Amino acid sequence: MNIYIPKGYRFAAVHCGLKSDPAQLDLSLIVSDIPAAAAGVFTPNLVCGAPVQVDRNRVPGNGFRAVVVNSRCANACTGEQGIRNAEEMAALASQTVGGAAQQGLVMSTGVIGTALPMDKIRNGIVAASEKLTASENGFLNASRGMMTTDTKEKYVTKLLTLGNSETITLAGICKGAAMMAPKLATMLAVIVTDAALEPVDAQNLLRNSAEESFNCISVEGHTSTSDTLLLLANGAAQPTPLYGDNLELFAKTLRELCIELAVKIPEDGEGASHLITIDIEGCKTREDAKTIARKIAEDALVKTAICGADPNWGRIVSASGTAGVIYNPKKVSLKLNGFELFKNGEPIPFDKTTVSDSIRNNRKTHILLTFGEGNTGIRFWTTDLTTEYVRLNSDYTT
Amino acid sequence: MNIYIPKGYRFAAVHCGLKSDPAQLDLSLIVSDIPAAAAGVFTPNLVCGAPVQVDRNRVPGNGFRAVVVNSRCANACTGEQGIRNAEEMAALASQTVGGAAQQGLVMSTGVIGTALPMDKIRNGIVAASEKLTASENGFLNASRGMMTTDTKEKYVTKLLTLGNSETITLAGICKGAAMMAPKLATMLAVIVTDAALEPVDAQNLLRNSAEESFNCISVEGHTSTSDTLLLLANGAAQPTPLYGDNLELFAKTLRELCIELAVKIPEDGEGASHLITIDIEGCKTREDAKTIARKIAEDALVKTAICGADPNWGRIVSASGTAGVIYNPKKVSLKLNGFELFKNGEPIPFDKTTVSDSIRNNRKTHILLTFGEGNTGIRFWTTDLTTEYVRLNSDYTT
Repeated sequence: MNIYIPKGYRFAAVHCGLKSDPAQLDLSLIVSDIPAAAAGVFTPNLVCGAPVQVDRNRVPGNGFRAVVVNSRCANACTGEQGIRNAEEMAALASQTVGGAAQQGLVMSTGVIGTALPMDKIRNGIVAASEKLTASENGFLNASRGMMTTDTKEKYVTKLLTLGNSETITLAGICKGAAMMAPKLATMLAVIVTDAALEPVDAQNLLRNSAEESFNCISVEGHTSTSDTLLLLANGAAQPTPLYGDNLELFAKTLRELCIELAVKIPEDGEGASHLITIDIEGCKTREDAKTIARKIAEDALVKTAICGADPNWGRIVSASGTAGVIYNPKKVSLKLNGFELFKNGEPIPFDKTTVSDSIRNNRKTHILLTFGEGNTGIRFWTTDLTTEYVRLNSDYTT
Repeated sequence: MNIYIPKGYRFAAVHCGLKSDPAQLDLSLIVSDIPAAAAGVFTPNLVCGAPVQVDRNRVPGNGFRAVVVNSRCANACTGEQGIRNAEEMAALASQTVGGAAQQGLVMSTGVIGTALPMDKIRNGIVAASEKLTASENGFLNASRGMMTTDTKEKYVTKLLTLGNSETITLAGICKGAAMMAPKLATMLAVIVTDAALEPVDAQNLLRNSAEESFNCISVEGHTSTSDTLLLLANGAAQPTPLYGDNLELFAKTLRELCIELAVKIPEDGEGASHLITIDIEGCKTREDAKTIARKIAEDALVKTAICGADPNWGRIVSASGTAGVIYNPKKVSLKLNGFELFKNGEPIPFDKTTVSDSIRNNRKTHILLTFGEGNTGIRFWTTDLTTEYVRLNSDYTT
């Protein structure tokens, strides 16, 4: 896969001592050489991390120079000192390129309730600033520095040719493998572009794209304290803020990038052995479809059945019935990996071994649940639930 | 523990071939020798089993003679034939003691979407009718015939002396170890008493008792298609329907019995290594407290942390923030097994090893989460999430 780096950005990551393995990067720095517009979408969790509280007050807006991200410590439930630490991180990051304190943004991910080791963070930001580069390698390292239990770095880049034949670039990185829920699927993501955008446009496009991407994935339904999706647009490729047809082209590409980036999270879900795509069709409203999709995506019994290649489809239909959406059960039909198992409220005889094999032999599972209430649907992604997930999450802080 | 059997009831269970192991009982029959008032509380799942649809049309009411319960097949998502099968089961059960078809009630638990093997069921009801007995052993067998993945039978019996020194008896049995959610925690339960009750009183008392017991437990948050709680009151010990002080005494005892019976379900939760009691205090309303308790009880990250004796308390506070209840995070405090870990929004230093040991060395874990919004609270019970739960649920139908 080709990697395209937007103009006017530099990237770096270092090991500053947050992770125990010195070979693992744990602090990422992203800077824009010229001031960038920025937009953000944040966790709806009432208990939100200090970085979320700091960033939320700053975006959407103009003039941003840097984003710093650390892993291993979420800086959440850390009281007033946590806020001061987040503000200092953002300020130090911005100052590495001569920016003011308010021109920095910050993200933290990791354990909740412990204080950031600020000495390590301060040294880390200085060390990262000395490695800043516009190279592919710098970009990939930045995506690695934010990883926690992720098994691989996650990034998507795209070129877009505008109406006037100018070419702009979008590049996104994200992290996340658990504490994933569909209200902005618990993760950190930064998208940078060398297009210019008005902050209000950036905010609207980002929110709409998140709705169809990061808000449509779930690992276990826990919306973290720290979810953050940032978009920086510095105009280095074309300085006039996009509008009209070009803005629409940009919106479409941003949406595609967000979906590709978001799906990488359940693909790398903790301990997951299946990526499950849930298509809900025939609902009255998108909200109805999403509520049902979410309920299925977060159902432990559905997720363990897929893990065990068990075509126990009744759990899927049963989960849909508890979502709180009113529908006629006699108009419900279900296909699992293309096999019709339930049609208009009646079970269809099927060969268990065949369906079980199709689950076992594919890393991707497809659920299609059709209702007879309307013409609206949604696509949602989740993982299965494995013993490895439990093992990973039983022993995280100790 | 003494077992008290209410007057005028007989019990039996048989192996009729639903479970593969001939030593395991799989069909239970409970009869009242005289017509009994009956009340019921049922699953809110829109996709509900055929037995739920049949019983819901019959209770509350008078004149009931029998309840038949089978395991291994839920008779849910089985279309019109499923309804006919449930009606036939109820009729056959009632006819064993000379009752009419409409005087029977029916419950089924097990796999969703497969048809009941009616030949086995018919033979089973006849065989059970020949073993009906008012003995302790018959009662215990009836509680065993409804077990699925339960590791032990679940029952509670109580004596109650009324104001006029008459003694009445209440006896309850239930099954359930998974597909447990707090909207009538996915299970089957039958409570029989030799008191007399007006059906409308029976229904109100049962609904209120369920709210504080079966609706306050959760294993994994999946409300099944088949949840059913029935109360039969035949008046064999005292024929005049209870009222006034005696009705209140009965209500209190019924509530205690329901709580004791309900807690046995998460105690025996699939693969569980901890029973977790969640006390929520300081909320504006009971509904707020329950919403928060539920969110914590069903959070995979909280449940895996307890499984691993990991005092990762941030997950508990974080889960509470996603419940959709508005509160001031700076007034939140948390105790885990009595250790204060978070107070008024600030983390409290603690010894990880001590707290971890207290989780590891006790089968019971206690979470106390206090808010500063009001004076209302709730007690809720759940299990931890273990690799054994995943193993059990990955391989159920195949």
